[in-house]
Amino acid sequence: MNKPGPLSLNTITVREQWSLQQCIEGCARHGITGISPWRDKLAEYGVQNAAKHIREVGLTVTGLCRGGMFPAADAAGRQRAIEDNQRAIDDAAALGAQCLVLVVGGLPPSSKDLAGAHAQVQDGIAAILPYARAAGVPLAIEPLHPMFAADRACVNTLGHALDICDTLGDGAADRSLGVALDVYHVWWDPHLSAQIKRAGRRILAFHICDWLVPTTDLLLDRGMMGDGVIDIPGIRAQVEAQGYDGFCEVEIMSANNWWRRDADDVLRTCIERHKTVV
Amino acid sequence: MNKPGPLSLNTITVREQWSLQQCIEGCARHGITGISPWRDKLAEYGVQNAAKHIREVGLTVTGLCRGGMFPAADAAGRQRAIEDNQRAIDDAAALGAQCLVLVVGGLPPSSKDLAGAHAQVQDGIAAILPYARAAGVPLAIEPLHPMFAADRACVNTLGHALDICDTLGDGAADRSLGVALDVYHVWWDPHLSAQIKRAGRRILAFHICDWLVPTTDLLLDRGMMGDGVIDIPGIRAQVEAQGYDGFCEVEIMSANNWWRRDADDVLRTCIERHKTVV
Repeated sequence: MNKPGPLSLNTITVREQWSLQQCIEGCARHGITGISPWRDKLAEYGVQNAAKHIREVGLTVTGLCRGGMFPAADAAGRQRAIEDNQRAIDDAAALGAQCLVLVVGGLPPSSKDLAGAHAQVQDGIAAILPYARAAGVPLAIEPLHPMFAADRACVNTLGHALDICDTLGDGAADRSLGVALDVYHVWWDPHLSAQIKRAGRRILAFHICDWLVPTTDLLLDRGMMGDGVIDIPGIRAQVEAQGYDGFCEVEIMSANNWWRRDADDVLRTCIERHKTVV
Repeated sequence: MNKPGPLSLNTITVREQWSLQQCIEGCARHGITGISPWRDKLAEYGVQNAAKHIREVGLTVTGLCRGGMFPAADAAGRQRAIEDNQRAIDDAAALGAQCLVLVVGGLPPSSKDLAGAHAQVQDGIAAILPYARAAGVPLAIEPLHPMFAADRACVNTLGHALDICDTLGDGAADRSLGVALDVYHVWWDPHLSAQIKRAGRRILAFHICDWLVPTTDLLLDRGMMGDGVIDIPGIRAQVEAQGYDGFCEVEIMSANNWWRRDADDVLRTCIERHKTVV
């Protein structure tokens, strides 16, 4: 088994403990060479401050979280979403991010029209793609676990994300539109292996954490790598077989465990698990 | 839109309030003509007592919950599972159940081998199918929502369930092995319409409830029909277009809401929602 790609810290992993500035300092202190910030913390620090700090420290920005959230109740809402995505693209460009992660959004308020939401997502991505290409920011559609279909993302399989890439992109070699693959969201899929092969070079980001048994909260009970049931090395090997040579970005939302611990301890654990179980 | 098929009460909907005997009496009192018991309550009442009572009241048994749970850590565990499924088939036959619902099981203890679990499920169904056919009990594979892949069922899409039917059954007209379609588990699937068409007459049971936003518990926060985001009439129409003319079985596990209410009120609500939003 090859060694995994370098570790990147998705800052939500220590959201409750650290500001973005502290995350950047923490990565530098622990020798973590990649970072993936969220926009709320980025806004708090200021994009230019963050970009300067990240450059000084020499971190690779493996992604910006997040764009997306396209479906809306009316045309004005959809337009606001597009404009917000353009601002996210600007921020990603300012940071030199390897991609903007798209969490595409779920059903509009009081809608039960899933097919309509799918169409709104595709239309939204189509609307921002030229802007993203002009800015040099690849868009990474992140299929979310099906338990988020209603309220966060109605694209729930790698296959569906790639259908959108096939429809809107310029073929399998076009990395301006691709996918962010998070083991948490896709590990259960019986078609995962086939779809990773189909994705090929369009895997723009590889996210890691683990699925706990039991899982006590749909959103905020993700596990540290090694503490759950996901065959992370097995998925990583398939992703790398397609030519992925980027970072392993750890993204853990854990209200009752990792968010309550000392952030330096969390980073130390991420580093140790990255070496041993990823 | 056609009127929905008659209502059946999956007894877990009032699990905390009523015994199986009370469920049978409750269905008779409220004019509900179908019932689907769980095996724990069936064992408590006694299979022969239950069968006699159900016959006297004239209920259709739309399913027995449940067989399955095939994957195990060793051969002895897998053999125990097969024998337990044979007892479930005996019980289903004694009740004249329209099917035995199979919740196939997740990963064996401390396993991360999802493909291995898939194989164990298929082998387990293959092992019990002759016994089920001899007993005249159709087996209905129930794909469960992907959030249950680890601990309850590693068959999480209608497509995967039908792959197993295609492999082990005698073609699309063979109703000795089919599927139980619960809107809760499959509503998010972008391939749902195509797979319902593929299922054809192999849809042996149609289960209803709703997906709440937010959902506060993975297992025990299902919603009453109409309280969530699932387009139940839309899915029902597709199922009926394949020739399904059976019951609509309401199955709600709701620790903090419906399990805390008066069971007669719960049944009245089911009846009203069945008329208005199914």
